[in-house]
Amino acid sequence: METKNLARYLSISFLVLFLVSFLDSVQGRPISMLSGPDPKDAAYTARWLVAQNSWGVLNTISSELGGAPFGNVVSFSDGPPNEGSGIPYFYLTALDPTARNALVDKRSSLTISEYPLGTCGKIDPENPTCAKITLTGKLLVVDGKSEEAEVARHALFSKHPEMEGWPKGHNFQIFKLEIENIFLIDWFGGAKPLTVYDYLHKKMKGHDFIM
Amino acid sequence: METKNLARYLSISFLVLFLVSFLDSVQGRPISMLSGPDPKDAAYTARWLVAQNSWGVLNTISSELGGAPFGNVVSFSDGPPNEGSGIPYFYLTALDPTARNALVDKRSSLTISEYPLGTCGKIDPENPTCAKITLTGKLLVVDGKSEEAEVARHALFSKHPEMEGWPKGHNFQIFKLEIENIFLIDWFGGAKPLTVYDYLHKKMKGHDFIM
Repeated sequence: METKNLARYLSISFLVLFLVSFLDSVQGRPISMLSGPDPKDAAYTARWLVAQNSWGVLNTISSELGGAPFGNVVSFSDGPPNEGSGIPYFYLTALDPTARNALVDKRSSLTISEYPLGTCGKIDPENPTCAKITLTGKLLVVDGKSEEAEVARHALFSKHPEMEGWPKGHNFQIFKLEIENIFLIDWFGGAKPLTVYDYLHKKMKGHDFIM
Repeated sequence: METKNLARYLSISFLVLFLVSFLDSVQGRPISMLSGPDPKDAAYTARWLVAQNSWGVLNTISSELGGAPFGNVVSFSDGPPNEGSGIPYFYLTALDPTARNALVDKRSSLTISEYPLGTCGKIDPENPTCAKITLTGKLLVVDGKSEEAEVARHALFSKHPEMEGWPKGHNFQIFKLEIENIFLIDWFGGAKPLTVYDYLHKKMKGHDFIM
């Protein structure tokens, strides 16, 4: 009887472990991925951050608030899961100030944190080992009939399925960030030197993506 | 013996439930809070967003990147848990461009999303029913010896305990955002009208805070 009880006890313990790890992965923190990429590989880390995150803060110069820097929460995509290009595309309407600002002044940046991916563990979101990236450049409208627009639509709708159904009357347009500067913090010692060329040409391993 | 086994079984089941709900709350998504505040109450929603989030994107005008709007991931606090004042405080070092920018040009905004709180459910981060807020104003240094600095330190260190141990040599200083404009989206139909006065004077119910 003792053995039987022990067996039952063990089987329930395994059930607990299973439930715990299941919940953990549902909430976007797979235990196996509780560390991001190697911080020494700046290009990889930067591309990983952009590919893994589905949203960020897109900053423009506010023409309505005296030229103040104006951040707005937006969804973006740099490609379908496992096929990120590093170029962030957006689906914006001029009913929102961000698109209106960009049509007046193209200067813009996109800021993304590793924190919501769940791979920072218990460290503070501002701790430099919890990676953060700011891509600065020009926020440009993509011609809706171009080949690039097709690519962008596929990138956006594959990661943000509900976008396809957003109201036609709101005239959503595809925008892209033409990157000119990269500010990446992924460890102690200040921003990592990383050129736009090295960022865009980094070869990524599809199986390392956890979308 | 059957009763004994049943009792053990039940007690282990309760252990499972306890573990599951504990993990859930640790990860910031308490099952009981899977909806945010009433979107009709703009002031409440705004203060709730600021009190619940521990990090956001702080935008400044980049003196090093030709006046581009530059967003940076930062931790902030508007008060200890359940005692938020609505005024965001930051702990920044001039080793980082955000503080350097603010010392040249005070114009700034702080952008926060409901999305990482987990209360948006399955909707897209850009969907207007997933609340987002941008507080625009001036990013000011708080005199380290003032009474306000004491309040700010308590606000920051109670939500970000590791800050207290950050390197003294980095000369972290307390900054605050003096809010001049509020851009709040929490439902369809565009930004909610909300004055800074109504935001700062909104009475909050402590028990509605889930930090």
